[in-house]
Amino acid sequence: MLKNYLEKPLRELTFAVVGMGLIGGSYAKALRKLKVRRIMGMDISAGIAHACLNANMIDEVVEKDGSNLKEADVVICSVYPEAIVDFVRSNLGNFSAGALLTDATGVKGTMPREIQEMLPDGCEFLSGHPMAGRQGSGIAMSDAGIFNNSNYIIVPTEKNTAEAIGWLEHFAEAIGCARTVRVTMEEHDKIIAYTSDLPHITAVALVNSASYNENTQYFIAGGFRDATRVADINPELWSDLFLSNRENVIAEIENYQNQMERWKKAIMENDRDALKAIMREAGPRRRMLY
Amino acid sequence: MLKNYLEKPLRELTFAVVGMGLIGGSYAKALRKLKVRRIMGMDISAGIAHACLNANMIDEVVEKDGSNLKEADVVICSVYPEAIVDFVRSNLGNFSAGALLTDATGVKGTMPREIQEMLPDGCEFLSGHPMAGRQGSGIAMSDAGIFNNSNYIIVPTEKNTAEAIGWLEHFAEAIGCARTVRVTMEEHDKIIAYTSDLPHITAVALVNSASYNENTQYFIAGGFRDATRVADINPELWSDLFLSNRENVIAEIENYQNQMERWKKAIMENDRDALKAIMREAGPRRRMLY
Repeated sequence: MLKNYLEKPLRELTFAVVGMGLIGGSYAKALRKLKVRRIMGMDISAGIAHACLNANMIDEVVEKDGSNLKEADVVICSVYPEAIVDFVRSNLGNFSAGALLTDATGVKGTMPREIQEMLPDGCEFLSGHPMAGRQGSGIAMSDAGIFNNSNYIIVPTEKNTAEAIGWLEHFAEAIGCARTVRVTMEEHDKIIAYTSDLPHITAVALVNSASYNENTQYFIAGGFRDATRVADINPELWSDLFLSNRENVIAEIENYQNQMERWKKAIMENDRDALKAIMREAGPRRRMLY
Repeated sequence: MLKNYLEKPLRELTFAVVGMGLIGGSYAKALRKLKVRRIMGMDISAGIAHACLNANMIDEVVEKDGSNLKEADVVICSVYPEAIVDFVRSNLGNFSAGALLTDATGVKGTMPREIQEMLPDGCEFLSGHPMAGRQGSGIAMSDAGIFNNSNYIIVPTEKNTAEAIGWLEHFAEAIGCARTVRVTMEEHDKIIAYTSDLPHITAVALVNSASYNENTQYFIAGGFRDATRVADINPELWSDLFLSNRENVIAEIENYQNQMERWKKAIMENDRDALKAIMREAGPRRRMLY
């Protein structure tokens, strides 16, 4: 089975990006900077796919029936988690026999194994995603720079080959990531509930407080601005992300609620020593997060 | 009564900065950029005061007995809230008869009225502070730029004169602030509990979660980094700030806890519509915060 992506340099490969949103658009722009042979793009909105073509972000639109997907050596699925399985199932006959499929989804659940079971031999699905993102959503917010200095998480199963894993590590570095990390699917979803789902929840909760009013804007300094930077997120995408990682997210909210109770208790009891201990615990932890 | 600060331009005034920490040091640097006549500095640590002198941040160290404070036309107190009243009381005989005293304290409580009652006629205390700050603490983190584009909050009482208020507004703009806002002491402390105390608490609570471990650093993206930026704060200063604004802070924690419960309920009940409603409420609120 010829696997082009393992035999040829990036410049000679054809990529298909499925879903031209914030992340998909950023992949397309990063691929353009790498001067890959050809970039194909697909979006549920034909208008957006053609806008990407007109902007020279992609070289070709993937046909609605997926018939030209077979030209792609690597397919990057950057659609909502629920849509990836549907996309792969509808296009099982369209992928090139030696293609590598990957995704950029922040929650894994059972999705990687489901896809791996339906794919024909030779065609490999390796799950992963960059620890990158930014406020807002959509193609207009995409930026090749979002990968710079980020970590790229690779989530292999027992079905994945060392060659595909090695290639994805190399690719992540090529688009600007500083480091790649491998974890199991179960570890992945647990960690992401804390490091990604939870800070989005806390940011939204802060601006949604009953205390918010039209004068709030004049009294905010860096602390409030930063703590709420990711409060403006895509409700469709994120309700999928939260619900598909439901049990881990609930556990993280509860861990966090324990910390808020600890704060409230220390302040109610006028316990200066407890307050200092809380803050002294946080300082060194925060300084580890470069 | 001659009030130099009302009669002369900034370049002809002498300032005393009391407390050469992050904020006090930033005032001294901003005053230097304004080329004021003379900058005096005072710190509980003689070593720090002399380091500021050696670095040309100040022109003169305030004597331990306060005897040369009378040279100052304007005194800026940037010490911990609890220390301001003590400082003023110990130096009642040292201030120039027409001096303006102000502070940079994030919590007001009864402090402005206490000070106004003890000051001799002619010497005016007008409370205020910049909505500026940054992670860390201490003179080494000070920076004239922290005032740029920030808002300056002025908290007058019935004892303050329109002239002093006007002067402080002018001064705030001179050091780089974009806007000045006036509020009563009671409004001030209530608003600050939400816009400043609470985001520091949420940041600390996030990194203090039981889920934090040595691998957390590889899985954080912008969301976690931003949400926790102010988690590394000065425990001494902030336990004063939280406790001196205790009732308002408790009310804000409770408002916030209601929002966390709302999230948990929506996720536990798999209520996609409730989740979207929560996020749709937050987006426009966040976009108002330039």
